[in-house]
Amino acid sequence: MLTATAEALSNIAFIKYWGNRDQALRLPSNPSLSMNLAGLKTVTTVTFNPEFKEDRLTLNGVVATGAALERVSRHLDLIRERAGIALPAQVESGNTFPSGAGIASSASGFAALTVAAASAAGLNLEPNELSALARRGSGSASRSIPGGFTEWQLGRAADGSDSYAFSIAPPTHWDLTDVIAVISAAHKATGSTEGHGIADTSPFQRARVAGAHDRLSACRTALLARDFERFATVVEEDAIAMHAVMMTSRPALLYWEPLTIAILQALPTWRAEGLPVCFTIDAGPNVHCLTPSAHAAEVERRLRALGVPTVLTAPPGPAASVVADR
Amino acid sequence: MLTATAEALSNIAFIKYWGNRDQALRLPSNPSLSMNLAGLKTVTTVTFNPEFKEDRLTLNGVVATGAALERVSRHLDLIRERAGIALPAQVESGNTFPSGAGIASSASGFAALTVAAASAAGLNLEPNELSALARRGSGSASRSIPGGFTEWQLGRAADGSDSYAFSIAPPTHWDLTDVIAVISAAHKATGSTEGHGIADTSPFQRARVAGAHDRLSACRTALLARDFERFATVVEEDAIAMHAVMMTSRPALLYWEPLTIAILQALPTWRAEGLPVCFTIDAGPNVHCLTPSAHAAEVERRLRALGVPTVLTAPPGPAASVVADR
Repeated sequence: MLTATAEALSNIAFIKYWGNRDQALRLPSNPSLSMNLAGLKTVTTVTFNPEFKEDRLTLNGVVATGAALERVSRHLDLIRERAGIALPAQVESGNTFPSGAGIASSASGFAALTVAAASAAGLNLEPNELSALARRGSGSASRSIPGGFTEWQLGRAADGSDSYAFSIAPPTHWDLTDVIAVISAAHKATGSTEGHGIADTSPFQRARVAGAHDRLSACRTALLARDFERFATVVEEDAIAMHAVMMTSRPALLYWEPLTIAILQALPTWRAEGLPVCFTIDAGPNVHCLTPSAHAAEVERRLRALGVPTVLTAPPGPAASVVADR
Repeated sequence: MLTATAEALSNIAFIKYWGNRDQALRLPSNPSLSMNLAGLKTVTTVTFNPEFKEDRLTLNGVVATGAALERVSRHLDLIRERAGIALPAQVESGNTFPSGAGIASSASGFAALTVAAASAAGLNLEPNELSALARRGSGSASRSIPGGFTEWQLGRAADGSDSYAFSIAPPTHWDLTDVIAVISAAHKATGSTEGHGIADTSPFQRARVAGAHDRLSACRTALLARDFERFATVVEEDAIAMHAVMMTSRPALLYWEPLTIAILQALPTWRAEGLPVCFTIDAGPNVHCLTPSAHAAEVERRLRALGVPTVLTAPPGPAASVVADR
């Protein structure tokens, strides 16, 4: 019996990934940059066992079948192929963050699955290899493999082997907190994979991608210099550019809810009052408010005063890792 | 004493005007298409009088000075120059729609001003000339000169003389109603003139303008064929494209309010239930819900159920006209 357990964190992108140049390999249209979110963790155990007839999956203790199992099986195939094994696997995965809170679990989920399965299969892979592998399951999972602040480079190889994420700064580099306004737990009508597939139907995607390189460069510079003001400007610009592409794609994807707008309208006022905070928004209605940790409690207080029902708080977190061999 | 009174309607653009290729002459970056809104009217009396020392302006009975008077005076100068007169004018202008309801009065206002001033000055101008003149005061005013459904063509002349609007169908052509969800009476932080001036700072304006020609063509075809489904698709696409440009310009213009999003999220559900209705949004938070008039009452009922405090209803309306010589 080959088994391993790994854990990986969710991440929030400051420069967004939206759209693929190769949908099957999940090779992105533009590079992206993110921060791992401490506390928003997936823990996954993979056990390859010749006695199983087929792959099995439990998510938070509930047996999963259908599309979810199919996607995990296809990902395991990549690892089995690499390890030269053909054993079915039992996958048990659980999140420490509330499921259905609109926090995507595919990044932490596929990062943890990749690390656990590779370890269980006896593969000894470099972080870059693990990141490129995780990318095949979910693009943003590539960024949950290295620690702290990570950059997912485009890569040039046709097989995607150099399209992986690496750490540009450790979690201790900048005392930044993601104060997450959880606005809706509703399931997304259009999943991210499908969304990436229609990004090119927006008349604005080409210009967004063209500008992403400069924005990433500006964001990296601001982040390394801990220059919050420059960081805030480029992070908000990039998020709005992604949502402008989403809402102009076919079909149009309008992820915002009334409370999303209430927060976007309030933030400039808060900043004018001296509170250093900026927003970013993933493919959903939740608003991620980024602020130096000294101001996190005040940002949370103001979000609740606006009527936000649930607020989660996450500082920068470490790399994905194997936690135990059973 | 030279005096005339004229009236003109507000209009709602189905294909939007946003950005100028010549800011001073208000020559637009793309052609646009709109419907005059019956009942949302400005009535303006212009009196040229040698006894006045300078131009005077009253808006809804209140004396206006400063920037508002200055803009009207500059517009009167164009007409005085054309008529070869140098007389100061008294301008009395009133709207039949609630002021501060977020319904732009510059379109109806400058259309009525143009017609009244030209008539008072003894100019006998063709509708196309009046439309091009009205454009100089406020771009969208050009579309309030002709009646019913109107198209504002780009024009080619360097002086803007052929950038005017003309009627493509009379008010009776299509029994369409604009059910306006009035969401905020707050004054716009960034006026339209300033907004047009920064349109080119958005990385998406070029693609929006490039696509506007095809959208206008599709909209005109759908409108002439009274094909609501095709009309709805292109009208919503065009509105979202404009707001995507606005929110990605520098500074970013985010005109939406929470209720704006609530309506945008509700509309697809209403349509799925068989209610033919689509939206468009101008440079503000109000949502203009376009529907065949038989469904206007139901749309209004649903908007009020969403919490919209004020709803205005307007069918297609006639051309601007002189209403009386005093």
